[in-house]
Amino acid sequence: MKTLQAKRSFASDNNAGVHPKILDAIVRANAGHVVAYGDDIYTASALKKFRDELGEDTEVYFVFSGTGANVLGLKAATEPYHAIMCADTAHINVDECGAPERFTGCKLVTVPTDDGKLKPALLKGLLHGIGVEHHVQPRVISISQSTEMGTVYTVEEIKELADFAHNNNLLLHVDGARIANAAVSLNKSLRAITRDAGVDVLSFGGAKNGMMYGEAVVFFKPELANGFKFTRKQGSHLASKMRFISAQFDALLTGNLWKKNAAHANRMAKILSKELASIPQIKITQKVEANGVFAIIPKNFVPVLQKQYFFYVWNPEVSEVRLMTSFDTTEEDIEKFVKLVRRIVK
Amino acid sequence: MKTLQAKRSFASDNNAGVHPKILDAIVRANAGHVVAYGDDIYTASALKKFRDELGEDTEVYFVFSGTGANVLGLKAATEPYHAIMCADTAHINVDECGAPERFTGCKLVTVPTDDGKLKPALLKGLLHGIGVEHHVQPRVISISQSTEMGTVYTVEEIKELADFAHNNNLLLHVDGARIANAAVSLNKSLRAITRDAGVDVLSFGGAKNGMMYGEAVVFFKPELANGFKFTRKQGSHLASKMRFISAQFDALLTGNLWKKNAAHANRMAKILSKELASIPQIKITQKVEANGVFAIIPKNFVPVLQKQYFFYVWNPEVSEVRLMTSFDTTEEDIEKFVKLVRRIVK
Amino acid sequence: MKTLQAKRSFASDNNAGVHPKILDAIVRANAGHVVAYGDDIYTASALKKFRDELGEDTEVYFVFSGTGANVLGLKAATEPYHAIMCADTAHINVDECGAPERFTGCKLVTVPTDDGKLKPALLKGLLHGIGVEHHVQPRVISISQSTEMGTVYTVEEIKELADFAHNNNLLLHVDGARIANAAVSLNKSLRAITRDAGVDVLSFGGAKNGMMYGEAVVFFKPELANGFKFTRKQGSHLASKMRFISAQFDALLTGNLWKKNAAHANRMAKILSKELASIPQIKITQKVEANGVFAIIPKNFVPVLQKQYFFYVWNPEVSEVRLMTSFDTTEEDIEKFVKLVRRIVK
Amino acid sequence: MKTLQAKRSFASDNNAGVHPKILDAIVRANAGHVVAYGDDIYTASALKKFRDELGEDTEVYFVFSGTGANVLGLKAATEPYHAIMCADTAHINVDECGAPERFTGCKLVTVPTDDGKLKPALLKGLLHGIGVEHHVQPRVISISQSTEMGTVYTVEEIKELADFAHNNNLLLHVDGARIANAAVSLNKSLRAITRDAGVDVLSFGGAKNGMMYGEAVVFFKPELANGFKFTRKQGSHLASKMRFISAQFDALLTGNLWKKNAAHANRMAKILSKELASIPQIKITQKVEANGVFAIIPKNFVPVLQKQYFFYVWNPEVSEVRLMTSFDTTEEDIEKFVKLVRRIVK
Repeated sequence: MKTLQAKRSFASDNNAGVHPKILDAIVRANAGHVVAYGDDIYTASALKKFRDELGEDTEVYFVFSGTGANVLGLKAATEPYHAIMCADTAHINVDECGAPERFTGCKLVTVPTDDGKLKPALLKGLLHGIGVEHHVQPRVISISQSTEMGTVYTVEEIKELADFAHNNNLLLHVDGARIANAAVSLNKSLRAITRDAGVDVLSFGGAKNGMMYGEAVVFFKPELANGFKFTRKQGSHLASKMRFISAQFDALLTGNLWKKNAAHANRMAKILSKELASIPQIKITQKVEANGVFAIIPKNFVPVLQKQYFFYVWNPEVSEVRLMTSFDTTEEDIEKFVKLVRRIVK
Repeated sequence: MKTLQAKRSFASDNNAGVHPKILDAIVRANAGHVVAYGDDIYTASALKKFRDELGEDTEVYFVFSGTGANVLGLKAATEPYHAIMCADTAHINVDECGAPERFTGCKLVTVPTDDGKLKPALLKGLLHGIGVEHHVQPRVISISQSTEMGTVYTVEEIKELADFAHNNNLLLHVDGARIANAAVSLNKSLRAITRDAGVDVLSFGGAKNGMMYGEAVVFFKPELANGFKFTRKQGSHLASKMRFISAQFDALLTGNLWKKNAAHANRMAKILSKELASIPQIKITQKVEANGVFAIIPKNFVPVLQKQYFFYVWNPEVSEVRLMTSFDTTEEDIEKFVKLVRRIVK
Repeated sequence: MKTLQAKRSFASDNNAGVHPKILDAIVRANAGHVVAYGDDIYTASALKKFRDELGEDTEVYFVFSGTGANVLGLKAATEPYHAIMCADTAHINVDECGAPERFTGCKLVTVPTDDGKLKPALLKGLLHGIGVEHHVQPRVISISQSTEMGTVYTVEEIKELADFAHNNNLLLHVDGARIANAAVSLNKSLRAITRDAGVDVLSFGGAKNGMMYGEAVVFFKPELANGFKFTRKQGSHLASKMRFISAQFDALLTGNLWKKNAAHANRMAKILSKELASIPQIKITQKVEANGVFAIIPKNFVPVLQKQYFFYVWNPEVSEVRLMTSFDTTEEDIEKFVKLVRRIVK
Repeated sequence: MKTLQAKRSFASDNNAGVHPKILDAIVRANAGHVVAYGDDIYTASALKKFRDELGEDTEVYFVFSGTGANVLGLKAATEPYHAIMCADTAHINVDECGAPERFTGCKLVTVPTDDGKLKPALLKGLLHGIGVEHHVQPRVISISQSTEMGTVYTVEEIKELADFAHNNNLLLHVDGARIANAAVSLNKSLRAITRDAGVDVLSFGGAKNGMMYGEAVVFFKPELANGFKFTRKQGSHLASKMRFISAQFDALLTGNLWKKNAAHANRMAKILSKELASIPQIKITQKVEANGVFAIIPKNFVPVLQKQYFFYVWNPEVSEVRLMTSFDTTEEDIEKFVKLVRRIVK
């Protein structure tokens, strides 16, 4: 197989490849033998960096995929008769093929939102039937940060949700597949928007921020991690050659690479949205706070664009599309894309 | 982190790193954007090579881990009220923390064996209660090839098991974490020892034969793969950046790399066992047919050796240890190890 | 314990006891020994009556409870990656503590309705993502007949749903905890509103129509029942002394007892709603088509009434209550209750 | 249907009907309306009697079936990555169609025994791999009392198992489908052989001792019952018309009916075994300590006997049969049966 000239894409931050520094870390980790399953110096180093970033008594477990991280983290926080509350646009609700229900046994109780963001006011009505055995028992509020709609919870909004959760004997789970984009957007540390804001369990994303594979399940309440190593193994997410996930996270958490990657992606989204907003036929539909741009593009133009660029139609009824930027999106990519849009809409 | 001087190991083929050609394929695959989740040319190429190797109408799905491959492949072949029959030493029985029961709902029914190998005669007694609703219903025979004991089923032995299975309305599943070592050992093609021998579902191993991560679930009866893409996703084993698993398998199946790696590991095991067998205090306990050597080493010597080499004590009662070789084991590794053994036992 | 003078209740048809003819059948079935688990003449007789009523090639399995019937019937119709679509008021969604998700692995996808009734127009929007592995795959439409809101689907409405289902490769499941009330309401046979209307799987209710315990899972497509006896046993719903469920169903299906019980309950609901409707402070909120009456009763009156009568507040925000009648509700019960209401509202 | 002249049976204590006093209690409970799901005076009374018998802080939950009681009780005591250790003859292992694995997610780890009885010495070897994530983690020892082989654990034997369990951070579960027969056999109170002997969770049998349906899950450590009402409901074992299970247990625990029924059944087994033992061609194979008799009857005689009596062949290879007596077995039943045996073997 020879290197192929790949189409540029705004489909997903998953369509990008691996950041060179992360790839380099992988290559360097490929030296000799180490004990499998995580008892190695790469893993020790990565875990230390996580704790430096997020707090000393943070429990961190690496898994293969984002769905794996969500499902296993949620399992650690629930009994099968619990309810997990989330926005109806949540990845755990629409994009994981029912994995959360399948592995936790729980019901997902969903709330419609305009911007993908939950608020206590939207959740209050779901706290009925507590103690009544006919009904699933509310236990976890799960939010995505940044959201699937490209929006970002402020620290205050997270705190409000965390307070609401803890006052009602609930836990706050964050699907942080794009947690880095949120931190950058808020200009806060990772710790400030998670532990310090009251988050209990976090899926910390790697693949959408320049890694090849690997996500982390992060517990801010260590007792939630009791037995989690067994849950991870039984959930078939214990990597044998763990060092290669660890080396990636180590690189991501070195020299603020996580921040640089996310900042770049966010900046590209800003530019893209600004350019698109300047085209009269196009309407930006969500605040652009992270690395996603939602825009209504007149229906007949979409297939023409898709011939040259991968991207998804989010809502076909109104011809709303989703455009994602990533650590490797270039200003040139955007220029060319916008130029094409301008030409087409004329 | 700087490259560390790793201890050499006979603990597991998982303690080795990645074969340079596979690492190189990963690096080359990191070019530009491709569609996530497998709709890319790397995956297309790898799937084609699998079909070239195993037959045209073979259905192949990549997953992250060996436990994932076993569990998802077994799920595809069963209803929750089924029984999966295996040797009591089977990886699915002892080394997957109950993942098969958890994900399939099935009972594992086990048979003690001397050498890790099932035979129809050992299974006949388990075919009772068929049709009786109080009892789990036999459905799958699962064997490991090569076995956890370092032994290898001959083609005839597999055929006998496949015939026995099919005559009793059962399926034959192979945990092929080390299928390459078996093919090399038998001097047969991968196809000859799987499809042509009557295997229905195969976990095709990557990580134990020089890959970084990635295994394949292989269906020789395409109808068993109906809906499997949903099962894989719901089982949280759909890789977003699939190209990096695919590129590895592509490299493994190019220029017979799979065979070279396995042949080397097998040869190292032969040398190791021969050397050890020449030491009077040591007794080889299993036929050395693949890349594992089982040996009784007097109890007091074990901790001394373990100070310098990773390896596992298999049966502490008789001080039986397991020594695994891998694609990167060197004759020098063995010489040094054996020399140390000789010095210690004196 | 001596017989107690029980409070009369409009809380649920579950608060009633057992119809005397059914109790008598139980007593008569208590003669000598029969083979356990259903290989007895009582079961044979009951099954025959079910087939006489619903069609020759109907597969019928008795279970203990309504939740058991729903969960096991849905399991028989689904793979874990499927979606089950239902009204958001459905018993399977709100009153079974997540049992359907737990046992089937499926996601329940819900639709808000005014009257508890699904329509194809409400479901069309849910048929997206078919074939896309990120999303649960629509497989079952589950309706309740009569509904949790006391309404009844007409035969035409069921046919429309069945056609919609079958045209989209879906199955139609009916939670028939109150199927008898619906048949009586429509003045149709049980067969006309199930098999002949296109229903695939039915939970046939016993306990809400005068039985002590016992429900039936009914398959109109026999192939859906393949292996169901194992699913029932593994789901822990195989009764050892099966004859006592069977004798009850036998009695229920003898001399149209099912119809008489349901007709009585429905008639009582009509009378009750008519009387309540004549009180200006009270507003009936749903059509009274079966044995449930939904009414808004001014908030301050509710606790006063509840001192003497069991019933549930359905929607506390608008002070809507649910009043259920049963086979043993008397006109005198209603008179007394309405008299009390009249006195209180003055 | 008219009352049928049933064949007498030694097949199972499940083939018997309902004790007249229990049936009478059911009939008397059928008076007026009571709140469904257990908030009624029958349930309150039965629970009080359980606590009188077993200790004040005992938590008791009624379910429909013995499999339900086992599965739900085990779920309350385990996480999915746990191992449940039992005799290979245990009902949970061979007669529940994999329900324990399906609902708990756990692996059942089995031990062969001669007499169906576990001992610490048989279990010690299973306590390996504790803390190692590749292996299921031992958590519950489950024994049957009386056993499936008709034998009975002494109080000392239970205490030894309980001590062994608690010293190893395990729990002791008892499948007490025939707990009454064991208590009578040992001439001890129910409390003495359960709570006072160190049992943690008990399935308390009803149906095999004269009830129509209904078993109880009994927790001697109240904290194990946290959330159990939700587990019971989600497990579809919450009876709507709970009073009818409760009334049966109330009757069973009134005037020592449980003891009388079991004592009678045990006495019948003693007589039966004594008579059979006097026939030279027949060999009793297990101690007769409860209500089961295991005997080798020459192969050709079995079908002749089965023409007139239901009973099961336990081990066809040696023609060992199982004969069960029940609360309603008569001396005349035994005389006739033995007479037939004598005539046949001549």
